[in-house]
Amino acid sequence: MTTDTTGYKPGLEGIVAAETTLSSVDGLKGELIIGGFFVEELASQASFEEVCYLLWNDARLPNAQELAAFKQELAAMRAIPEATLPLLEAAARHKVPAMDALRIAAGSLDLDLGETDDTQRARALTARIPTVVAAYWRLLNGRQPLAPRADLDHAANYLYMLTGETPSAARVRGLETYLNTVSDHGLNASTFTARVIISTQSDMVSAIVGAIGALKGPLHGGAPGPALDMVFEIGTPEKAEPYLRAMLDRGDRLMGFGHRVYKVRDPRADVLANAAEKMFLADGDMRLYELAKHVEGVAIRLLDEYKPGRNLRTNVEFFTALLLHGLEFETDLFTPTFAVGRVAGWIGHCFEQQRTGRLIRPQSVYIGERERQWTPAEAR
Amino acid sequence: MTTDTTGYKPGLEGIVAAETTLSSVDGLKGELIIGGFFVEELASQASFEEVCYLLWNDARLPNAQELAAFKQELAAMRAIPEATLPLLEAAARHKVPAMDALRIAAGSLDLDLGETDDTQRARALTARIPTVVAAYWRLLNGRQPLAPRADLDHAANYLYMLTGETPSAARVRGLETYLNTVSDHGLNASTFTARVIISTQSDMVSAIVGAIGALKGPLHGGAPGPALDMVFEIGTPEKAEPYLRAMLDRGDRLMGFGHRVYKVRDPRADVLANAAEKMFLADGDMRLYELAKHVEGVAIRLLDEYKPGRNLRTNVEFFTALLLHGLEFETDLFTPTFAVGRVAGWIGHCFEQQRTGRLIRPQSVYIGERERQWTPAEAR
Repeated sequence: MTTDTTGYKPGLEGIVAAETTLSSVDGLKGELIIGGFFVEELASQASFEEVCYLLWNDARLPNAQELAAFKQELAAMRAIPEATLPLLEAAARHKVPAMDALRIAAGSLDLDLGETDDTQRARALTARIPTVVAAYWRLLNGRQPLAPRADLDHAANYLYMLTGETPSAARVRGLETYLNTVSDHGLNASTFTARVIISTQSDMVSAIVGAIGALKGPLHGGAPGPALDMVFEIGTPEKAEPYLRAMLDRGDRLMGFGHRVYKVRDPRADVLANAAEKMFLADGDMRLYELAKHVEGVAIRLLDEYKPGRNLRTNVEFFTALLLHGLEFETDLFTPTFAVGRVAGWIGHCFEQQRTGRLIRPQSVYIGERERQWTPAEAR
Repeated sequence: MTTDTTGYKPGLEGIVAAETTLSSVDGLKGELIIGGFFVEELASQASFEEVCYLLWNDARLPNAQELAAFKQELAAMRAIPEATLPLLEAAARHKVPAMDALRIAAGSLDLDLGETDDTQRARALTARIPTVVAAYWRLLNGRQPLAPRADLDHAANYLYMLTGETPSAARVRGLETYLNTVSDHGLNASTFTARVIISTQSDMVSAIVGAIGALKGPLHGGAPGPALDMVFEIGTPEKAEPYLRAMLDRGDRLMGFGHRVYKVRDPRADVLANAAEKMFLADGDMRLYELAKHVEGVAIRLLDEYKPGRNLRTNVEFFTALLLHGLEFETDLFTPTFAVGRVAGWIGHCFEQQRTGRLIRPQSVYIGERERQWTPAEAR
């Protein structure tokens, strides 16, 4: 044997594969830092374009002039290449899930750029991914895609392209706070995928397409879809306690509570809870909001009763679902919308990885046979 | 600080991220094992379909009946989905490089499969990637793509779809030996990409598209293209020595000699050298072959003279270029043809990673600022 398994780390747990200035996740303290700011400080105040700028420019925020120029550059790139729409139409005919359609279409998003560089590809991907998601969503539901509107900012235009209506300021702020909150989160599997691909000196589109493929995996990082299904099933406040007691008596897990990494609280949950409250108060279905908050309160009380000392708290998936349902997004749009936000971080990590100039190339250890002799198929 | 950089391994050098029965690379001994066989034993005797079967079925070779059935299954899946051809046509209009076109098109290769599983996706990807490469190559050169022929085996059909001619047995054997030789090679960056993506429980198409994106990166693993450029420039045998002496006197590196991992010899170089010799003798341009062999001999003699003790030997890129030029492949087809072979290993690694059930998720360490206070753009 010339190899050994001494260093084998299945899943690479605890192995540090990157130094980063983009974000810091501290599960024990319940802290998330993005570009130097606690997520609570950044997400509800910044525009999504400011967060992109922050993550792509060494944690520097743009001044007013730089921000206006950057918004204009992104807005000018929102229209997708000619070849992308037929592809989405074909995917819709086959009823392909939205994440697969996004992955397929994302691969084509620099087709019309000609000789270009990764700065341009980064802008095109960020500007066009919402166009792809919205166009595909409308096609899947038998409606014609809408052309992007350059007079709207990034988040507002995404809502417009989905609904055909100019969104209220409260809804735009709600979506923008969500996109900022999920814009980066350490070296998760999709971000790591993007870094591995770009580390070969491949291009930004290749890296982002790989990341989208990883993000769709159920193990990637939670599925916000089902977190509110329980709330919908409960239906009215007075049914909450008997319903939840029955679940806990059966030993069922309550979706939307507890987190693998965050042991104290998930800071993103607080940010999104506040964002949801503001949005629903200004422009939302208060019945849904009040029902969800009631169910949450009962669930927390019963979890403390049934699982004392576990300190299970409402997690980011619960409030993601509440906020996105408040925006009238259907569940299948949640992960593509996650990608609309996370692309900011993926691209930031690609730029950061490119600056290291290093190829990411771990080892495998061979545990198979050796020195087999060939026999033709007829003799097997 | 709650994180430290003690464990930081830029590039993950020396970190074992997978146990595998697929292949073993031992650079110090100059050994490559694929599915239990030394590459010298396997590559020139197996059909490409046998190598796929070996890599996808726990290192088991098919018996004659299983092999016939498997060949038929692959052959039946070669036609690409309806939506893929317009995409290739659009890419050809934009003169997109062949690897980008392959990455874009590969994302769409399961569009027509409906409800399916990764076993079917694996077959579709393997069967259809040659169809995509050949169709794109013809489109790029102003010719109509050819429909695959189910009466030909995998390698023969690829040659047919490129040229429109039924290839000689010698050429098929030459290509097949090449595809087998590059079918797997430890945990290189594209293979690792595929494993990271599939480890999220994403699908096989997402994993392979990510791998193609990584393979196109110049740092991935050599560029066989330029290895014979020197031979073409030298042109006639008598010019070899003065040309090479001039290069070495200037301190230029001779492309096609020496290898980063293999310190003794690259076993793939021997396999491909033999394959090239057989193919050229039976059905090739002997002038090119003899010139290349002459240049190689002079280069080795001069490298020993100029760099004594370094033991620089002809590498896999030199013989890859010789073999593929012998098949009349242009240089831009080399990396896509590498993908036609390597997809066998990527898929084997995906199946292997799926069986572990583990998410690959290393850590990052945050080296940025903390506790920044938000200021609006106007105040920056």
